[in-house]
Amino acid sequence: MEVPDMRLTSLLGFIAGTLTTVSFVPQVLHAWRNKSCHDLSWGMLFTFSAGVVLWLLYGLRLWAMPIIVANAVTLALLVIIMILKMRYTTR
Amino acid sequence: MEVPDMRLTSLLGFIAGTLTTVSFVPQVLHAWRNKSCHDLSWGMLFTFSAGVVLWLLYGLRLWAMPIIVANAVTLALLVIIMILKMRYTTR
Repeated sequence: MEVPDMRLTSLLGFIAGTLTTVSFVPQVLHAWRNKSCHDLSWGMLFTFSAGVVLWLLYGLRLWAMPIIVANAVTLALLVIIMILKMRYTTR
Repeated sequence: MEVPDMRLTSLLGFIAGTLTTVSFVPQVLHAWRNKSCHDLSWGMLFTFSAGVVLWLLYGLRLWAMPIIVANAVTLALLVIIMILKMRYTTR
């Protein structure tokens, strides 16, 4: 279906996507353990999430699986981080 | 050079890349103002940076400008955040 070159490119994309996505897992655990997300700014979280939604649409248009899968999972993790931040913010 | 459809896709990619990249700017300012990056875990920063390097290679192989530009700038901002974190970490 794909030429070997594209397969290598996709593999590279999947490893890249796994790393950038998995990177949010220690962040979620870090926030959970420290019961704090104070140093994660809302500005960053909202802008980043909006970008991830658009990367997802971009990936869907290119039908590039590494981009689609990575951004879908990242979005889910970002939602968890934002829920934790709301919970830990003192009011 | 490109069919209109691909141009729209690239535009979408550039907006996505601008958002996910620009999102690190408030994070840098937030860290600078609070003189703290404690809640940003090293695990997240290293894994994310490694992923960004691979996304850059992926973008180069696809010759997809939105992916190349976004990840190059993100990498530069991540390096700044890591330098600030090292500086603010009490030893």
